[in-house]
Amino acid sequence: MENDIFGLQKITPLDQAAMRAAQIRWDNRTKPLGSLGRLEDIVVRLAGINGTPDPRADKRAVVIMCADNGVVEENVSSCPKSVTASVTCNFIRGITGINVFSRLVNASLKIVDIGVDADLKFPGIIDRKIRKGTWNMADGPAMTREEAVKGILTGIEVVRELKEAGIHIFATGEMGIGNTSTSCAISAVLTGIPVDDLAGLGSGLSKEAYLNKIRVIRRAIEINEPQLTDPVDVLAKVGGFDIAGLAGCFLGAAIYKIPAVIDGFISAAAALAAFRIHPAAKDYMLPSHGSAEQGFSAVMEALDLEPMLNLGMRLGEGTGAALGLQLVDAALAAYNQMGSFEDASIEQYVPQE
Amino acid sequence: MENDIFGLQKITPLDQAAMRAAQIRWDNRTKPLGSLGRLEDIVVRLAGINGTPDPRADKRAVVIMCADNGVVEENVSSCPKSVTASVTCNFIRGITGINVFSRLVNASLKIVDIGVDADLKFPGIIDRKIRKGTWNMADGPAMTREEAVKGILTGIEVVRELKEAGIHIFATGEMGIGNTSTSCAISAVLTGIPVDDLAGLGSGLSKEAYLNKIRVIRRAIEINEPQLTDPVDVLAKVGGFDIAGLAGCFLGAAIYKIPAVIDGFISAAAALAAFRIHPAAKDYMLPSHGSAEQGFSAVMEALDLEPMLNLGMRLGEGTGAALGLQLVDAALAAYNQMGSFEDASIEQYVPQE
Repeated sequence: MENDIFGLQKITPLDQAAMRAAQIRWDNRTKPLGSLGRLEDIVVRLAGINGTPDPRADKRAVVIMCADNGVVEENVSSCPKSVTASVTCNFIRGITGINVFSRLVNASLKIVDIGVDADLKFPGIIDRKIRKGTWNMADGPAMTREEAVKGILTGIEVVRELKEAGIHIFATGEMGIGNTSTSCAISAVLTGIPVDDLAGLGSGLSKEAYLNKIRVIRRAIEINEPQLTDPVDVLAKVGGFDIAGLAGCFLGAAIYKIPAVIDGFISAAAALAAFRIHPAAKDYMLPSHGSAEQGFSAVMEALDLEPMLNLGMRLGEGTGAALGLQLVDAALAAYNQMGSFEDASIEQYVPQE
Repeated sequence: MENDIFGLQKITPLDQAAMRAAQIRWDNRTKPLGSLGRLEDIVVRLAGINGTPDPRADKRAVVIMCADNGVVEENVSSCPKSVTASVTCNFIRGITGINVFSRLVNASLKIVDIGVDADLKFPGIIDRKIRKGTWNMADGPAMTREEAVKGILTGIEVVRELKEAGIHIFATGEMGIGNTSTSCAISAVLTGIPVDDLAGLGSGLSKEAYLNKIRVIRRAIEINEPQLTDPVDVLAKVGGFDIAGLAGCFLGAAIYKIPAVIDGFISAAAALAAFRIHPAAKDYMLPSHGSAEQGFSAVMEALDLEPMLNLGMRLGEGTGAALGLQLVDAALAAYNQMGSFEDASIEQYVPQE
C-alpha cells in the first residue's frame, strides 16, 4: 500500500452494534417488517458509519471536482474544452442544475478546481489545481503517478475539511469535458469489459464521432498498458484529475467516516477505483441514480450496488447524487418520526410464521 | 359506456402546444439536451395537463382509500382485519409512514373511509362508507355492480373536491387488509397473467399461507367469472371498495385535469382498471416507485409505465407515491430555476450532428 501514503490504516469497520440497534428500532415502527426496503438499509448504514443508532444527515455538501482532459484533442466530446471552465464558473453564479438541486436538498457546494485549463481565481472556487488539464492519454499517460497520488490526496483532504466543518454526508459530482472517455477507459481496465460495451454518447455524439471515441479509448489503453492490480497506475495513465480527486473523496469518506453518495458514470468509475484501492471504502458509499450513460450499469455491477433512482439522467455535476439526498431525508424522517407498535395500538401487524 | 355515468366525455386530450413550449424551454436550459431524462418528461406532462408551460404542483394531497375485504375470512393475510380500522385511525394520529412522508413533501392527507368494517366517525376521516367491507369474493361477488359504480363515483367526487380546493397534484394510497389479494385477482383478469405469477407475500405470509392465498384468488376468479372487457364487472366481482375508489380517482384525475401519482400494487391495479375503462386516463398518471410486491411489475407493464424509484418498498398507504412528489419538486425546480444558454455564456453545450 505504498507505505500507506493515503492513511488508509485509519479505516475501521462499520459499528455493528449501532446497526443492530437501528434495525431493531425499524422493526418496531408501525409497518410490516422490512416494508420500507432500502430506506431502512440507508439508515442502518448511516448508523454503522456514525457509530450510533441516531445518525444525522442534515449538514450536507456536494463536492464537484472540475478538471480538463487532454484527450479532448482527439474529438471525443461534442463540447469544446472551454465548456469545462464556463460551467465551473456557472457553478458560482448559481444557474446550473446542481445549483438548483443543492438548494433543494439544502446542501452547500464545494467547487474544486483540481485541473481546469483556465485561470479561475474566483471566490467560491477552491483552488487545488494540479495542472491545467491532463495530457492526451491517447499519446501517453494522462499524468504522472505522483500527480495521480496528489489527486487522490486532494480528495481525501477535501473530505477532512468537510468533516471539520461538521458535514454529515456528501454527494459527489464532477465537471470535465472528455471525462466520459476517461471513465470508460478506467472502467474497461478495472472490469475487464470491452470498451465497445462501456463507451456511451456522453453529452451527445454522432455515430461517427462515437466510433472515433471508442478507437481513441482503445488506443489509450493499448499504448499505456495500465495495470489492473494497481488502481493508482490506472488513474494516472488513463484517468483524469477529476476522477483521481473523486476516488480520493471516496477513500476520505471511509477514513473520516462520512457517507459519500455516488452520482453517475464518472463518479461510479472513481468509486470503483477507490474500492479497488481499499475494499472497505464501499461501506461508506451510497448509490443514487442509474445514469443513462452506457457504461454505468457495468461499473455498478462491479461494485455490487444498485441505483435507487431510475430517471434516465446524464447531466453529471452531482445532480443524481443530490436527488439521492432526498431519499436519505425520507429514510431518516420515517425512522425518527413514525410511531412504534405500542404507539399504534397494534400488536399483530407483523408476519406470521 | 353505460350512458357515461362517470362523466368521461369531459376528458380532453393533453395540450400539445403547452407540451411543446415546455420542451423548448427545457432545451434552452444550460445542460446537454435531454440530460435530465424523465424529470423533463414530468414537467412536459404537467404542462400538457395544466394547459400551460408554467405548470404548478405546490398544492398537493395524498388520497388514502380505506376499506375492508370479506376475503380475509379465507386467511389470505398475515394481519387480522381489525388492523384496517386501527391504521386508518392512526392516519389521523399522525404516526404512520404516510403521515411522515406527507409532511416531508408538504401534502395534505385525505383519508377516505369507503368501506372500513368499523364505526369511524372521527374528525379527519372522510365518511364515504359504501358498506362495512365487501363480501368474501371466494364465495361470490365482492360487491354488486351498483356498489362498484358508487365506489368509482366516490373517487371521482373526491378528485372534484381536490380540484375545488385548488390542489395541483395528488398521490394515491390505500389501507385495507386483504387488498393484495383483490389487486392480484383484478390484475390476473385484466392482464391474463396466471395468479401464481402475480400473487405476493403481502405484509408477510408463510409459504403455506401463500399457497392458500393463490388457491383462494383462483377460486374467486373461477366462481365469479369476471368479464375482461367490462372492468366495472371485474372491480365488482373480485375487487374492493378501496380499489374501486382509487380507479375513480384516476378517472377523476383525467376529468378534472389533475395529475395522479401511482403508488404500489393496489394503486397500480386500480390505475389499470381506470385505463381499461378509459384509455386517456393514463395521460394523467405518473408512476413513482417500483413496489416489491410480486405482481406490481406486470401491472406496470400492462400500463406501459416504468417506476422512477427503486427502493424495494411494500408499505402501501401512498408512501411510494409521496416520494414521487419529491421528484416532481426536483423537476419543476430545475425547469424554473436553471439558467438558459444565454445566461450561461455557452453556445456549444449541445450535440453535434
